[in-house]
Amino acid sequence: MPDNELGGETGIIENYFTPLSDDTEGAFGLLDDAGKIRPPDGQEVVLTTDTIVSGIHYLDDAAPEDIGYKALAVNVSDLCAKGADPAVYLLSLALPSNPDPDWLQALSDGFGAAQDDFSCGLLGGDTVHTTGPVVITVTAAGFVPEGGMVHRFSANESDHVYVTGTIGDAALGLALLSGETARLEGMLGSAHSEFLKSRYWRPAPRVDAIAIVRTYASACMDISDGLAGDFGKMCASSGMGGVIQAGRIPLSPAAAACVHEDPVWLKTILSGGDDYELLLTVPPEHTEALELACSSAGVDVTCIGHICAAGEAVTMLDEDKEPVQLDRLSYDHF
Amino acid sequence: MPDNELGGETGIIENYFTPLSDDTEGAFGLLDDAGKIRPPDGQEVVLTTDTIVSGIHYLDDAAPEDIGYKALAVNVSDLCAKGADPAVYLLSLALPSNPDPDWLQALSDGFGAAQDDFSCGLLGGDTVHTTGPVVITVTAAGFVPEGGMVHRFSANESDHVYVTGTIGDAALGLALLSGETARLEGMLGSAHSEFLKSRYWRPAPRVDAIAIVRTYASACMDISDGLAGDFGKMCASSGMGGVIQAGRIPLSPAAAACVHEDPVWLKTILSGGDDYELLLTVPPEHTEALELACSSAGVDVTCIGHICAAGEAVTMLDEDKEPVQLDRLSYDHF
Repeated sequence: MPDNELGGETGIIENYFTPLSDDTEGAFGLLDDAGKIRPPDGQEVVLTTDTIVSGIHYLDDAAPEDIGYKALAVNVSDLCAKGADPAVYLLSLALPSNPDPDWLQALSDGFGAAQDDFSCGLLGGDTVHTTGPVVITVTAAGFVPEGGMVHRFSANESDHVYVTGTIGDAALGLALLSGETARLEGMLGSAHSEFLKSRYWRPAPRVDAIAIVRTYASACMDISDGLAGDFGKMCASSGMGGVIQAGRIPLSPAAAACVHEDPVWLKTILSGGDDYELLLTVPPEHTEALELACSSAGVDVTCIGHICAAGEAVTMLDEDKEPVQLDRLSYDHF
Repeated sequence: MPDNELGGETGIIENYFTPLSDDTEGAFGLLDDAGKIRPPDGQEVVLTTDTIVSGIHYLDDAAPEDIGYKALAVNVSDLCAKGADPAVYLLSLALPSNPDPDWLQALSDGFGAAQDDFSCGLLGGDTVHTTGPVVITVTAAGFVPEGGMVHRFSANESDHVYVTGTIGDAALGLALLSGETARLEGMLGSAHSEFLKSRYWRPAPRVDAIAIVRTYASACMDISDGLAGDFGKMCASSGMGGVIQAGRIPLSPAAAACVHEDPVWLKTILSGGDDYELLLTVPPEHTEALELACSSAGVDVTCIGHICAAGEAVTMLDEDKEPVQLDRLSYDHF
């Protein structure tokens, strides 16, 4: 029997995670080894999984509320990009042998805040011990009307390319948090700095755009590894070329201030990742309707380029129509 | 762009994991960020997740084929216990920054062998970098007729308690592999030793018993953390007491030889875990039918005790009807 104050694995689950399952049908109070879901009639289940590792996906000293929030948010972001309404999630935690109860409670609070924001309750999970950094895997399930799932690999020639929101904020926020940028921080002022950091800590997956994606997008993915690389993946998987005009990429006032200070920050914006905005392609005949629907729903979208024929290159052009040179296209773990 | 021979995250996925999704409907060749499932009409989806960590759940020098096989097997075991037919799985891998290609190929081969054995194809996943030990999280989905999921917490007073197969083999195998037991190994002989080790490396989830569980069990769980502790969890979550007669617990010839050599090994058998056999409760009026069905299906089952009224203790009795004293009931991570 466990002899620490946490009450062992059972105690950790009961104290910190069972409350997150209270409103989840099919979770059975986490008293079983599995959960159950039943898609509404005529709907299918979309499943996605994302793992975050301490020191890799978040800074070692990150606030546990933010870690929990982000772990669920990044998975919900994938569901949004597929046009799926978030339903439930499973949570696997690999923890050190004596996790701090306050840290666990705050982590749980972060998951709780995210599941309230995204209407996605805890269905089940697993809690294990690791000798290494904390590893958190979330698997999220969403529902989509039969045949309605939107894919990454289905962009067509001549489709217009859109992004939601603003790009690069989180990557700049991470640069600030990493302390690489003392001079930049002084120049930016605290409001801009705090905005950029908050965009890193608290991704805002586009749950407001799910129905719009389903209705108008020919292809969609969320931008998690950097716009340049993710656009490349979309084009490659679709077997198409594509062009993005860098000057059209929507920037927040804070990001614009960074670029104004030193244009080198544009590279961070284009390839830094952690945006959790949506990258979508829309057939030309639907762009007007898309823009109207987004306007009605309060979702900012910007057309930044178009899809080219198979065999053409994937490029990003600056305002002189010259290719933007990037050291790397996106974050890669390997 | 990744500059190593693996081709970055995309290369790892394409080379080692996309082939595992070839026959999975809804996996889309792993070209999307999510997969899709659709339960057959009238069926529900059971979801379960289990994480294994290098050095904790398997020895650091384990053969990667066995690691992959076991990672899927332990999840399928949970589905079997719920009466759900395995359908698909998602795989999250946290790996060192330069994983060995041969190791990755062998890991993939292990998953491939398991998915062939259990009819459970790869639907999607995530691959990330960690500075710590390898962490593998599998989330498996299975299908069960509406209302047919079998729970852990639904044992009733007077139900008979059964286990499939033999208990304790894997725990003894782990003891042998850990090198704690040189004297035991010499006594056992290589056939018994190899049998026990193989039971640790290659769990055999009870896919042959899924329909039987669904038909006859009032409650069921797989035995992963040790029979004593898992029986305690079943009784506690059901709000019942229970008795197991230790002398009735089915032992393999190899395990029986260990106990014959030194009765202390009974403690390992009862609390060691990694059995991945099923622990099920059956109402008295169905035990005859259960035993017949198991006999027809070639599934060994043994009645080892019964469920007592709420408020009564959970006990394990030896042949003198005295409670068996255990240092711990089961494996606990914390």
